[in-house]
Amino acid sequence: MTLWHVSEDIFDPAPKKLHSQETVFSIGNGYFGTRGTFEEGYPHANPATLLFGVFDTVPIAGEELANAPDWTPLGLLVNGERFCLNVGTLLSYQRTLDLQTGLLLRTIRWESPQGVRLSITSERFASLADEHVGAIRFSVTSEQPVDSQPLEISLWADFNTAVGNYNLMHWETMAQGEEQGLVWLQSETKHSQVFLAQSLSFTCNRSDYRQEFLPPYITPCIRLAGTLAPGETVTAEKVVVMFTSRDTAQPLHAALAHHHTLSAPTSPAQGQIFATLFEHNREAWTDFWRVSDVIIEGDEKAQVSIRYNIFQLRISVSPHDDRYSIAAKGLTGFGYRGHIFHDTEIFMLPFFTYVHPQIARDLLLYRYHLLPEAREKAHANGFEGAQYPWESTLSGEEMTPPSIIHPETGKVIAVLNGFLEIHITASIAHATWEYWRISGDDAFMRDYGAELILSTAMFWASRAEYNSHTNDFEIRDVVGPDEWHEHVNNNTYTNYMARWNVCTGLSILDWLHATDPQKAQELATSLGITPERLQHWQDIGARLRVLQDPQTKVFEQFEGFFSLEPLDQSRYQGRKASYQGLLGVEEVQKYRIVKQADVLMLLTVLLDNFDYQTKQANWDYYYPITDHDYGSSLTPALHVILASELGHLEDAYKLFMKGALVDLEDLRGNAAEGIHDACSGAVWQAAILGFAGLRVTESGYSTDPHWPDNWTRLAFTFSHKGERVAVDLRK
Amino acid sequence: MTLWHVSEDIFDPAPKKLHSQETVFSIGNGYFGTRGTFEEGYPHANPATLLFGVFDTVPIAGEELANAPDWTPLGLLVNGERFCLNVGTLLSYQRTLDLQTGLLLRTIRWESPQGVRLSITSERFASLADEHVGAIRFSVTSEQPVDSQPLEISLWADFNTAVGNYNLMHWETMAQGEEQGLVWLQSETKHSQVFLAQSLSFTCNRSDYRQEFLPPYITPCIRLAGTLAPGETVTAEKVVVMFTSRDTAQPLHAALAHHHTLSAPTSPAQGQIFATLFEHNREAWTDFWRVSDVIIEGDEKAQVSIRYNIFQLRISVSPHDDRYSIAAKGLTGFGYRGHIFHDTEIFMLPFFTYVHPQIARDLLLYRYHLLPEAREKAHANGFEGAQYPWESTLSGEEMTPPSIIHPETGKVIAVLNGFLEIHITASIAHATWEYWRISGDDAFMRDYGAELILSTAMFWASRAEYNSHTNDFEIRDVVGPDEWHEHVNNNTYTNYMARWNVCTGLSILDWLHATDPQKAQELATSLGITPERLQHWQDIGARLRVLQDPQTKVFEQFEGFFSLEPLDQSRYQGRKASYQGLLGVEEVQKYRIVKQADVLMLLTVLLDNFDYQTKQANWDYYYPITDHDYGSSLTPALHVILASELGHLEDAYKLFMKGALVDLEDLRGNAAEGIHDACSGAVWQAAILGFAGLRVTESGYSTDPHWPDNWTRLAFTFSHKGERVAVDLRK
Repeated sequence: MTLWHVSEDIFDPAPKKLHSQETVFSIGNGYFGTRGTFEEGYPHANPATLLFGVFDTVPIAGEELANAPDWTPLGLLVNGERFCLNVGTLLSYQRTLDLQTGLLLRTIRWESPQGVRLSITSERFASLADEHVGAIRFSVTSEQPVDSQPLEISLWADFNTAVGNYNLMHWETMAQGEEQGLVWLQSETKHSQVFLAQSLSFTCNRSDYRQEFLPPYITPCIRLAGTLAPGETVTAEKVVVMFTSRDTAQPLHAALAHHHTLSAPTSPAQGQIFATLFEHNREAWTDFWRVSDVIIEGDEKAQVSIRYNIFQLRISVSPHDDRYSIAAKGLTGFGYRGHIFHDTEIFMLPFFTYVHPQIARDLLLYRYHLLPEAREKAHANGFEGAQYPWESTLSGEEMTPPSIIHPETGKVIAVLNGFLEIHITASIAHATWEYWRISGDDAFMRDYGAELILSTAMFWASRAEYNSHTNDFEIRDVVGPDEWHEHVNNNTYTNYMARWNVCTGLSILDWLHATDPQKAQELATSLGITPERLQHWQDIGARLRVLQDPQTKVFEQFEGFFSLEPLDQSRYQGRKASYQGLLGVEEVQKYRIVKQADVLMLLTVLLDNFDYQTKQANWDYYYPITDHDYGSSLTPALHVILASELGHLEDAYKLFMKGALVDLEDLRGNAAEGIHDACSGAVWQAAILGFAGLRVTESGYSTDPHWPDNWTRLAFTFSHKGERVAVDLRK
Repeated sequence: MTLWHVSEDIFDPAPKKLHSQETVFSIGNGYFGTRGTFEEGYPHANPATLLFGVFDTVPIAGEELANAPDWTPLGLLVNGERFCLNVGTLLSYQRTLDLQTGLLLRTIRWESPQGVRLSITSERFASLADEHVGAIRFSVTSEQPVDSQPLEISLWADFNTAVGNYNLMHWETMAQGEEQGLVWLQSETKHSQVFLAQSLSFTCNRSDYRQEFLPPYITPCIRLAGTLAPGETVTAEKVVVMFTSRDTAQPLHAALAHHHTLSAPTSPAQGQIFATLFEHNREAWTDFWRVSDVIIEGDEKAQVSIRYNIFQLRISVSPHDDRYSIAAKGLTGFGYRGHIFHDTEIFMLPFFTYVHPQIARDLLLYRYHLLPEAREKAHANGFEGAQYPWESTLSGEEMTPPSIIHPETGKVIAVLNGFLEIHITASIAHATWEYWRISGDDAFMRDYGAELILSTAMFWASRAEYNSHTNDFEIRDVVGPDEWHEHVNNNTYTNYMARWNVCTGLSILDWLHATDPQKAQELATSLGITPERLQHWQDIGARLRVLQDPQTKVFEQFEGFFSLEPLDQSRYQGRKASYQGLLGVEEVQKYRIVKQADVLMLLTVLLDNFDYQTKQANWDYYYPITDHDYGSSLTPALHVILASELGHLEDAYKLFMKGALVDLEDLRGNAAEGIHDACSGAVWQAAILGFAGLRVTESGYSTDPHWPDNWTRLAFTFSHKGERVAVDLRK
């Protein structure tokens, strides 16, 4: 094992393990992601290829990323026996994902039911250099005794159209064909009418092998066949090119033309392009890691796992498509259906803002483009400005279902988040501000960011309710980040962030007046920012209620939280479920127990707004009553920023590893549904903003390392106002 | 056109027509049904093969018949061009379903995009003689000019696993292979763990054609390839055998062994077995029609369509499997998910009771086997005895979802039928009684029927509520057959049938005491039929409220129906939707408008219990206020029994044809979802119990023909107490 490798050397066919490892060994390039299923198939496997922003309609949940025809199938028949790990004997097995190059490698020694021994190697990558390309190299070596007969080998490559999101099919085959050494498949989503063209070439290194194009009804196929003497190897290459109607009006034409530029496969079977394609891909990953790597010395597990999380962030987003953003599970699984939550802005965006500002800009443009729909949502709810949906997809409409029916009990369960979990609107404004602060991208702020911040400020100003008894403003009936407490009033996170949003609206307007008065005037006119409204914003800024004990400095999570019953957590030792799962949705609301950072998230997101004593007091209060193990996966690693600043290094390290290993070790038992991308983002923040203590100000940056004892070095780069800064901290 | 043929001679690719004709041209044998999709495929086609009683789990709706891997795919490549009706030019087209033999025939003349002219014939049947067998014969003739080059022909046959119920996939491929001239596919349902083995042979009549077994990853395939000179024909035969784990513990072994008994395909490609298999199938259909045919002379449309409906009844049920019954759409579509309603007992069962008593017996045994679950449902609702579910599948549990979420609006819609539409329990008891009355099968009544009738009687006796003010019994808060009025009290249909059920319980107990005292004693003990309970049954029989105007003899459909607002139907002329659809679920309840026969269904089901005057008065009252066009499809044809008795022959004929053509002419626009099997049953009843006026009594039978003017002959057979009776009525 190197510090770039994620490996397994035992194949565990138990479905739970099979499916979680499919997630762990996903490959991708942001244009598409492909789960780590085997080329030859396996019973109950969940193959999936999800394309960035390619959705189809589903009942209740609106739309979901539509699992595309599987491009990875590659079959092997030896003397008439089909290779599959559920038959014969597995003599040795290793699978490795090389984070440095995105290559997924599997090496196997296998004995067929009839006793034929083979060693088999498969290599697979999604090209980071050419995002439409996926490639597989598949080598078979005869381990038969020297004096035995040559083996009859047949290899074939095709597509699997019999796939769905779990069981729901989204694509229909529209056409298929063969052309100049390629076969191709054209599919269309069942409802959203996205077209996908996939072309396929399949060649090998042996001139004595026959290549044949097979046009079965279901999916086109290419077969290679020949013999293999003892000790000999045949190496086949399957290359697939994918284009959709989101890329071009003629995806089939684009796929075929592009595929032909990659190679001119020569008859009958030869044509080695994998190595060249891989070299380009490797270079692109090298470029990526040059700026993105975080070096941790002294802790190999931390080193590999932070790279793994950075790798996940990269493969979850296309670097030049601002029509879609990063889903909760990226492109690696069906969980949360490809919907976008505050996970992106709060948890993942800082990595991009600091390291890949161009991608951060696209992710924010995604939100900017959907301002009209956010305005509609605000308007429909009786408010002004722009209110972002809790779950967002391509349309910008609220995609949180208002209710679901429990699939087993048949009971109707109301889902309140789309109505009440409103803090996301401030999170998006805050991410916009942060991007500007770190990148110094004034043009972005002028052309897009200001309008977004002003529109969201306007939402909050209309959402806050004046209380004439107390002569202040309130925000009632919400769900805060701690989703276990519903219909709460004056959630501190929500109110503080709302106030921040409104005040930031005022200051951004000042900035715009100073730097581009015409644009400022245009925006004020188009958005209806009247002097009266500005006065109201001032009032909100001065008098929006934030609940804090002036003695202890502890914020009250929401009105009445301090009076809830304490929960005796010692009674639940050894539990394997969240407190909500154990107590029930209704019962848990009565207790002073928190799903995930809420007040502490506020103190983290607006880190510079709070003094040390406030942080310490709130940490001491909230840290022990948060369910770090089975609450949300989002915040364990995010806690590290406060924990390291406050010197709780043992806790900080534990929280960091809980985040870093959430999928690698399937800590929550749900890795099968896809990578916890928010967690990946939090892990980066934990290392850089936490352990390294990076703080960027107008004038420059500082670090304040507080890291685990065994760590000897922490090095990384970030981009500050267009300049790349390399930080190398050593003990 | 003969009087046995359903044909189309234009291919209309509009999706609505495509999908409704897929239903119309379904084939089947009761073990499986296969929709009339094309062998070569067509964009947006809905191929489906549903197997009798083969279910898989679905969210909300419990379980549904699981669309199996499509066995029909057969592709043709000519000079490298793929045959499909969406390319090239269709020169002529005809498709015919031969009801006499179950053969689906398609003849086409087609010019490829490159100008190659072919005539193509496909023939397909599901063997009625050997229910595990489906077969296709596919002939291609070159219509090229005499002096042109031979064509390169490639034909291939495989399975399509990329199918679902609409988009929901139910099967997973577990294994596949090749063995002695066959390829095979083994699949398993995703949840219910039913195994399905499908074996496939593919041969042709030309010794110069190469046969090749292709093992692509997705599905196994056999290819035939050769050349075709101008004027020549190649004829290929695809034969598929299917067994499931519901048939045998080793379905794959069974399929392969059975397939080998059909044929010994000789290398490379020859082996003509279609003709032999078809001959056996034809004989089986001849046997069926010998007793099942209804001859109508003087009205060709009526003649063909009644045969079509009888054909549908036959292909919807396996004649030797009492673990499942006939679904609302048989095995021809996804509508109602294969669930069983009162459609079977009220509408379809009379055909089987009169014509195929052995099948009727199995259908009733299905209900008998599920008595334990019906007792559980009664118990869970606080009642005694057995209460059958409104929607039933294999488990016997209530499969009506308690609520659904509207897929577009997201609104939760309560579904009351599972709670309130309780009359089905009496319908099942009544069907049991009728079977006994017509068949004289005393052993069945003693061993099964009596227990069912007594258990359902016990349910009604406990369900009826005593009203001390009026000193009678009521059944409150139900939905009657007219589902547009919910939460009604004392629905006449429900109350009258309940009373009938209780009284029949008393008389069947008397009969049992007289004929088998020991069995009577056993049942009384095991069911808890105490003297007190029997007294209570007597009370119910005497005093269960039935609302009838003593002056007019008109029954009131339910309490308060007479006082509802009348609906001015003249305002809705030219409508294309039901009154419920136009007025809304809430609004329609206020009106005196009826979805389907309710009081009139009572008068039909218990035909001999009412005098002519009562029938006439109720007909005059209810017939005009029933939505015969867009209400339920169930009852138009059922009305014919009363209509013909009352001499309304013009209405009777209109109603008969509305039923007979509901799918053939897609009268309700929903034939795509599958055949209206209840309607098929009602059409048979309309002809025999309506137009022919057949009445069977203890001593014999009588007829009282009242039929349309142009009909000159009506002939049929039925089985009375084990004797086959042929009736031949002529003008």
